[in-house]
Amino acid sequence: MKAAIITIGDEILIGQIVDTNSAWMAQQLNALGIDVIQISSIADKPEAIQEALTLAGTRADLILSTGGLGPTQDDVTKQTLASFFNTSLYRDERVLQHVEQLFKRLDRPMLETNRQQADVLANAEVLHNETGTAPGMWIARQGKIYVIMPGVPTEMKYLMEAEVLPRLRKLPTKQTIVHRSIRTAGIGESFLAEQLASFEAQLPPNIHLAYLPKYAQVKLRLTAIGSDKDRLLTAIDAEEQKLISLTESYRVGFGDVLLEQQILDVMQEAGLQLTVAESCTGGYLGHLLTSLPGSSAVFKGGGIVYSNELKMQLLGVQEQTLRMFGAVSEQVALEMAIGAQQRFGADYSIAITGIAGPDGGSVEKPVGTVWIALAGKHGAKAKLFHFGNVRLANIERSAANALVLLFYLLKDEVGWRS
Amino acid sequence: MKAAIITIGDEILIGQIVDTNSAWMAQQLNALGIDVIQISSIADKPEAIQEALTLAGTRADLILSTGGLGPTQDDVTKQTLASFFNTSLYRDERVLQHVEQLFKRLDRPMLETNRQQADVLANAEVLHNETGTAPGMWIARQGKIYVIMPGVPTEMKYLMEAEVLPRLRKLPTKQTIVHRSIRTAGIGESFLAEQLASFEAQLPPNIHLAYLPKYAQVKLRLTAIGSDKDRLLTAIDAEEQKLISLTESYRVGFGDVLLEQQILDVMQEAGLQLTVAESCTGGYLGHLLTSLPGSSAVFKGGGIVYSNELKMQLLGVQEQTLRMFGAVSEQVALEMAIGAQQRFGADYSIAITGIAGPDGGSVEKPVGTVWIALAGKHGAKAKLFHFGNVRLANIERSAANALVLLFYLLKDEVGWRS
Repeated sequence: MKAAIITIGDEILIGQIVDTNSAWMAQQLNALGIDVIQISSIADKPEAIQEALTLAGTRADLILSTGGLGPTQDDVTKQTLASFFNTSLYRDERVLQHVEQLFKRLDRPMLETNRQQADVLANAEVLHNETGTAPGMWIARQGKIYVIMPGVPTEMKYLMEAEVLPRLRKLPTKQTIVHRSIRTAGIGESFLAEQLASFEAQLPPNIHLAYLPKYAQVKLRLTAIGSDKDRLLTAIDAEEQKLISLTESYRVGFGDVLLEQQILDVMQEAGLQLTVAESCTGGYLGHLLTSLPGSSAVFKGGGIVYSNELKMQLLGVQEQTLRMFGAVSEQVALEMAIGAQQRFGADYSIAITGIAGPDGGSVEKPVGTVWIALAGKHGAKAKLFHFGNVRLANIERSAANALVLLFYLLKDEVGWRS
Repeated sequence: MKAAIITIGDEILIGQIVDTNSAWMAQQLNALGIDVIQISSIADKPEAIQEALTLAGTRADLILSTGGLGPTQDDVTKQTLASFFNTSLYRDERVLQHVEQLFKRLDRPMLETNRQQADVLANAEVLHNETGTAPGMWIARQGKIYVIMPGVPTEMKYLMEAEVLPRLRKLPTKQTIVHRSIRTAGIGESFLAEQLASFEAQLPPNIHLAYLPKYAQVKLRLTAIGSDKDRLLTAIDAEEQKLISLTESYRVGFGDVLLEQQILDVMQEAGLQLTVAESCTGGYLGHLLTSLPGSSAVFKGGGIVYSNELKMQLLGVQEQTLRMFGAVSEQVALEMAIGAQQRFGADYSIAITGIAGPDGGSVEKPVGTVWIALAGKHGAKAKLFHFGNVRLANIERSAANALVLLFYLLKDEVGWRS
């Protein structure tokens, strides 16, 4: 089954927002063996919507649209849909009651534009939206399925999980897609490709290897496509086994699990606690860790020690060390890591100090210079990195590399098997 | 001038990565008065690339593609482009030298796949990529312009800024697009729309008002399109003035400036310093602030006080307060804010404590319960929020609302005029 995703709304076309919905939807569809062949962002204008729906209908069996269902005037989507499907709109009683209740609970008066949220297409099955005012719609027409959803990410996700995916799971499918991912760190994409050239050459035609580089890691993804699921699984398992033995020394993990999740899992199992001391990353590493549910079992917190004052006060970094070596130095990184480990009472600590840019660089320490120190069972070690000139990329690279360093340290000291 | 953006690579179609490039490119193009009519993500397969280029050529005058230029085998883009443009590839000497130098500097051996990065289309003007190995290409054909760029965000941005945008600025344009944005906080989208209904109704046909809601804020965007730039500016200025007086009590700022940037600017001018004490946001607020260059002038850092232990140790929260009221309470939030302000020696502090979920909720304090406290010139105040069930959304909403609260506090105490 082939799918097309259409995102309606000029916020994306003028670059006001990044389309995160499509990637999430694509993941969900992919897991069901549905092949997403195109993702398009279009303006919320009748012609653009009509044209995109028509074109998608010639290519895909399943068309999912998000956006254009808000209560304000710039939304013309429903009228255009009614005309495209040659049907009319009616006000759905159940949706109206739901919208009224939502407003009552928030103790807000209701407007006619809010009531209009209950208008749905006469040819659609209404997908009830518990998380907001705009309902979704499911339309089967001429062998194609059209799904219309609001663009607010939490509402779209709710509708997908509660209404759309369960319906899709019941559809007969002809094709199965299976993925296997192995994540590596510490080797560049082209070198990995060279090492895996003969493996790649011997792959059967329905199995494909892709290299997906990400800060500090390269993910290797095997994709198998076919009609016989059992044979497909046997074949991809065999290729995955070969890849496992070929990537022994670079492998950090499997699948789409985040490295920070793996670290939390391993540390929780070993009864270990982690803390951070963040200077140039300013809280980003803490954010990566605390984005994960249950992180509090391992992560105690730490310090955002952006100023030298807080480096001294919270971590006990010596004024003399700061004066002699500067805040971005091996010595300060080590004192930060040891200070965080001891003062915050954790088994492991990560300290990051660097020049994120665009200002603050010098000939000796250009923008992108970052020291990362880790304290563990046997004292602390620091490593120097030279990243680039882009502030946010330096922050993200620093955090990503700190996690890779911690992975290798835990592998040594805790005996983690990836 | 109309533009289409094409993103090549199945990472986006299977949802492995989010397409952030397109939004950034769209912003840049928009600022030049170039209207982005479609953004498409397609597979790195010859047919898909051919079809997308053909279709884009029928709709747009400018076609920009990113991705599909990496050194590994899954990239078929250049061969397909050669066939689409009916031309051949040759190895460019200058690019080859640049790639060789990059490898020399990194002290890495070079592979044939790395050398192939220097292969370019015979009909293209080469766009030299200082930030990576894959060059960009600029192709003018049959009145259309095609720009081919690598997909790595920093490389694409470098090529756009150094090579593509300067060339586009020199092209004759027929249409001007002007935007004006006013950001509001503390009022819902539909209520704002109701209040602005008569303003919206009197807008001239070439000026359009859009409502762009974002956590804790609604951005109002006026867009004017026309051929006479001076008349357009006069007209949009007049409408903006009306909107300014209509939004007096809800306005937090103008344009696309981030609220955190405004806060840093106002505080820096007033010589004030800021600190944070983050429990459920786990570093995210610090990250938002430190993502901005120059934030160290105002932001001292703070504590990621995820555990109760660190709340007591770093901030001086009383054990008794934690025991009596729980970590997610007004009392603890206030003690956190006051502790951070006093101990970290800052003029203002933000403290956030809440239940981000999915676990940890109770009947009394369900997931999404968040207390935000601010300490300023005249002591501390706390406010209770009830967000939703999605962990990351709760983290982002908490930080966004904390910034809005700080905005209003600074407006009161520092006399900020928005």
